[in-house]
Amino acid sequence: MNIKQDIIESAERIASYTHNTPVLTSQVINQIAGADLFFKCENFQKMGAFKMRGATNAILQLSNVQKQKGVVTHSSGNFAQALALAAKSLGIKAYIVMPSNAPEVKKKAVKGYGGIITECMPTLEARERTAQQIQQEKGATFVHPFNDFNVILGNASAGKELLETHPDLDYIIVPVGGGGLVSGTALSALSFSENCTVIGAEPFEVDDAYRSLEAGEIVHNTTTNTIADGLKTSLGDITFNIIKNHVQEIIRVTEEEIIDAMRLIWERMKIIVEPSSATALAVVLKSKSQFANKKVGLLISGGNVDLKKLPF
Amino acid sequence: MNIKQDIIESAERIASYTHNTPVLTSQVINQIAGADLFFKCENFQKMGAFKMRGATNAILQLSNVQKQKGVVTHSSGNFAQALALAAKSLGIKAYIVMPSNAPEVKKKAVKGYGGIITECMPTLEARERTAQQIQQEKGATFVHPFNDFNVILGNASAGKELLETHPDLDYIIVPVGGGGLVSGTALSALSFSENCTVIGAEPFEVDDAYRSLEAGEIVHNTTTNTIADGLKTSLGDITFNIIKNHVQEIIRVTEEEIIDAMRLIWERMKIIVEPSSATALAVVLKSKSQFANKKVGLLISGGNVDLKKLPF
Repeated sequence: MNIKQDIIESAERIASYTHNTPVLTSQVINQIAGADLFFKCENFQKMGAFKMRGATNAILQLSNVQKQKGVVTHSSGNFAQALALAAKSLGIKAYIVMPSNAPEVKKKAVKGYGGIITECMPTLEARERTAQQIQQEKGATFVHPFNDFNVILGNASAGKELLETHPDLDYIIVPVGGGGLVSGTALSALSFSENCTVIGAEPFEVDDAYRSLEAGEIVHNTTTNTIADGLKTSLGDITFNIIKNHVQEIIRVTEEEIIDAMRLIWERMKIIVEPSSATALAVVLKSKSQFANKKVGLLISGGNVDLKKLPF
Repeated sequence: MNIKQDIIESAERIASYTHNTPVLTSQVINQIAGADLFFKCENFQKMGAFKMRGATNAILQLSNVQKQKGVVTHSSGNFAQALALAAKSLGIKAYIVMPSNAPEVKKKAVKGYGGIITECMPTLEARERTAQQIQQEKGATFVHPFNDFNVILGNASAGKELLETHPDLDYIIVPVGGGGLVSGTALSALSFSENCTVIGAEPFEVDDAYRSLEAGEIVHNTTTNTIADGLKTSLGDITFNIIKNHVQEIIRVTEEEIIDAMRLIWERMKIIVEPSSATALAVVLKSKSQFANKKVGLLISGGNVDLKKLPF
């Protein structure tokens, strides 16, 4: 197995369906942070989040028979939109299981991309059960939002692009939900850099990844009381293994630190980022001495925010 | 007088103090509009608005004696910040007269850039009188926010940059407040394009430019009841003359159309733009047949929004 070659092939496979997103900088935020920050802006990705990469890579590897029957997933939001849009652009059906408490703006977007929504209770168990039913009834292929190697390889293309334009990064900081982006980024750092260290950013309120690394096994969140709605999911076995081996550490941030970092990005950079994405900057601002004068990439995971529910 | 040469020299003069801002596109908004739209993103300009261009150009042409005594202006917001920041970067004092009802976020920003604020009643008369007092007391040089040829020439660099990367634009649409940006853009279109038509965008609520063109003389706004707080000012004699001769028409939009366009930009492009800037897209969406299948530049004038007072 040649991970580097797999990432290169995945990146080529999805290139015409995704954007090579810009990397932005801010002199003001660099001054505040005391470091050189490079924001990889997946909020400008198609449908507004990095998830488009993994979803597209997974769908493009289905057989023709599988494509005829469609795909199904469960997702709290962005992956649902990603799978719906990727499926639509290839002319296949996407069945999306969403928790009933998912943000309205995300449900609306899934419908807009032609996704067929089934709502369920907001528990992982209910989501998995409902998705299984649809697999059985429709013959649709299940695509996991993050615990799927093709999804991870697709996600890895974001880190690959960032390291191609900025090969001398000391760190890349990545928000951690299910771990699909941080593990893809870690594989890219292994493949396309000499000494780039990947660090995960996680809210204290949903610090399952931090605690999983401490425990040496996957532990789950008992509550999900965070504004970072994209980070509520727990790790899967595939992402946990990659994180355990290739992510240096997980740094946790408070809700206040997330909101402050989000406000700083909105006010100073004039770009719309999700609370989940702001965790990466919150980590830099919290651990200034660790990143002082370093070159730090930040993966801005997405920009799908319900404008009616801002924390400012 | 060679306008083209003046614009080129102004652009060179300010180049190291300003950003050559990106031009963004959105497939989704193009589909909605039925046209090819090119957003010149001055919300990413230093201090968040195009005004940095004109302010810098004006200050750079002061004598050393003038620089020692500082500059003074009156502004409802963005020009105040621009003059303060431009002055700060050249080590000179900036006295800023602001109406007492200016957005808090803008007053705070002016102070952050080292500007010395004097508040006054929110009328043009009070602003002018207060600025005159400061001129007399401090010997500071008055820089008008828009009715100043050096300011207009500085602003013109935005249109120049847009036409350099997109020389085949059929139209450029520009928000109209005092007319400093639209007149600069009109001079750039004359100088750097073959057939590019410049159109002004104005809220119905402050349609002084539209009515001035109809009347053949400058008329003022009697009320300023618009969300587009950057567009409340009336034209000056210099900007009126340029607009009369070189801007094809002013198209007016309602408050609802402005807010809808602003929401579309925020949700789909993930960038933060001021209500004033959204008037340009509102014009395209209102007059679809006029712009159908055309290449249309939109001058996104700024992104300084009070996040606590969003219209969504």
